[in-house]
Amino acid sequence: MGARAGGSRTGRQGTRRLPEEGEELALSAQLPAVSAVEARLAERGVTLPGVVPPLAAYVPAVISGNLVYTSGQLPLIDGKLPASGKVGAADGGVDAETATALAATCAVNALAAIKSQIGDLDRITRIVKVVGFVASDPSFTGQPGVVNGASELLGAVLGDAGVHARSAVGVAVLPLDSPVEVEVIAEFT
Amino acid sequence: MGARAGGSRTGRQGTRRLPEEGEELALSAQLPAVSAVEARLAERGVTLPGVVPPLAAYVPAVISGNLVYTSGQLPLIDGKLPASGKVGAADGGVDAETATALAATCAVNALAAIKSQIGDLDRITRIVKVVGFVASDPSFTGQPGVVNGASELLGAVLGDAGVHARSAVGVAVLPLDSPVEVEVIAEFT
Amino acid sequence: MGARAGGSRTGRQGTRRLPEEGEELALSAQLPAVSAVEARLAERGVTLPGVVPPLAAYVPAVISGNLVYTSGQLPLIDGKLPASGKVGAADGGVDAETATALAATCAVNALAAIKSQIGDLDRITRIVKVVGFVASDPSFTGQPGVVNGASELLGAVLGDAGVHARSAVGVAVLPLDSPVEVEVIAEFT
Repeated sequence: MGARAGGSRTGRQGTRRLPEEGEELALSAQLPAVSAVEARLAERGVTLPGVVPPLAAYVPAVISGNLVYTSGQLPLIDGKLPASGKVGAADGGVDAETATALAATCAVNALAAIKSQIGDLDRITRIVKVVGFVASDPSFTGQPGVVNGASELLGAVLGDAGVHARSAVGVAVLPLDSPVEVEVIAEFT
Repeated sequence: MGARAGGSRTGRQGTRRLPEEGEELALSAQLPAVSAVEARLAERGVTLPGVVPPLAAYVPAVISGNLVYTSGQLPLIDGKLPASGKVGAADGGVDAETATALAATCAVNALAAIKSQIGDLDRITRIVKVVGFVASDPSFTGQPGVVNGASELLGAVLGDAGVHARSAVGVAVLPLDSPVEVEVIAEFT
Repeated sequence: MGARAGGSRTGRQGTRRLPEEGEELALSAQLPAVSAVEARLAERGVTLPGVVPPLAAYVPAVISGNLVYTSGQLPLIDGKLPASGKVGAADGGVDAETATALAATCAVNALAAIKSQIGDLDRITRIVKVVGFVASDPSFTGQPGVVNGASELLGAVLGDAGVHARSAVGVAVLPLDSPVEVEVIAEFT
């Protein structure tokens, strides 16, 4: 956690629910609170990034009632796309395995966007819906496998609360020529 | 109803609302309860299928509050696509009429997904939103007509409750090279 | 306002909130009530059109709880598309600047659809989510700039309430060969 500990501290300890019996308690009470979700991300070597800044008159996520709607998340890492192009294209595209990893990065960025609104990812009670857009060569039909990168990350770090309804579609092209874009609706308490 | 009566029995009679005066009562009280929605499907020769099993860390539908969000539904029948390819493509594609019928099958599968969560389709108070993705040759612009296959089925079996907001878009390609994918948000009581 | 004053009258004065101190009051109390949102549209030279009639078994917008979900809106003006084709296509397409203006028209049509359900646009407390579909040549990656046309209009006429979560994707083709389609979820009180 050390390198970017500041980024993974929750700013809203007062709203954290108490761990229930048998629940993993990631850190001692004296340390800055880190959500169980972020602890599980850390076990996978992932530090939650800062939220991707808005590019225009929109924001990374909006709360309505007990739902958070994220903007479509690109797999940006430190503001850059690790790869670009269409999945399955004969020339210059990205392969399905690479795209699957990028979809997981989209999901991490979605969690960062959600955290920017609710403060503590342990407040998530359910990932309600995921839509995964895969920039696809018209011959590529493996969108479900690619979007599994996002679905499996959410399941791994959120447990039962991470199991969601989902659509996966193959689109012509995405912003910045990104291979993947993922949007999320999450319920929180 | 006979052939697959088990599949159309509701498992939650206790939660069924009572029929109101003048409302169609499909079966006598002694028989296993069948929802009015499923009775109307039966009139069209459609038996509600079992829910399409999840392919990964996602589920066919999720409840949040009084809404059910379905996953994107392909027009699978007994696990197989009746047709594949892009709509309007000169070679090897499917025509608009075929795609319209497939969109209706997507809607039936969405109803099965909703039933898997709420038990009885008569609990639906409104189809709130439908998004229809049509795998399209770039020259094909008749997506609204194709997605009407889903919209008209929902209107036919749900009446006023089936009239929804809708988006229809033409995408490059869909999972399994399906010509159509439909997702639904339904409100229930 | 004169030319289509009837179209911009609110039919639900009883539900209008009172203007707060310092808030712009567009018209004197004796005139038919015009929402502040429509007054700001008028400052931009935009008269809210009548709602685009449904093409099938769907409607322009549906209320569920305190949310309004719009159907995907095309940039129709008086029932016609001002331009058609894919954005960024070498032959016969539309340029990004034109598409951006069309996206703003989609947003205006979305406001008309919302008004058809809630009567008075000043009841909007938040634009929760915008999805912008841009019919794109596979080489065009500027979807965010195009969809900014919608985002900036919503921000301009709704202020803080207009700042939303958003997804922008590039699709193969849209209904009627429209360059843009925009759908909106709005929260209201």
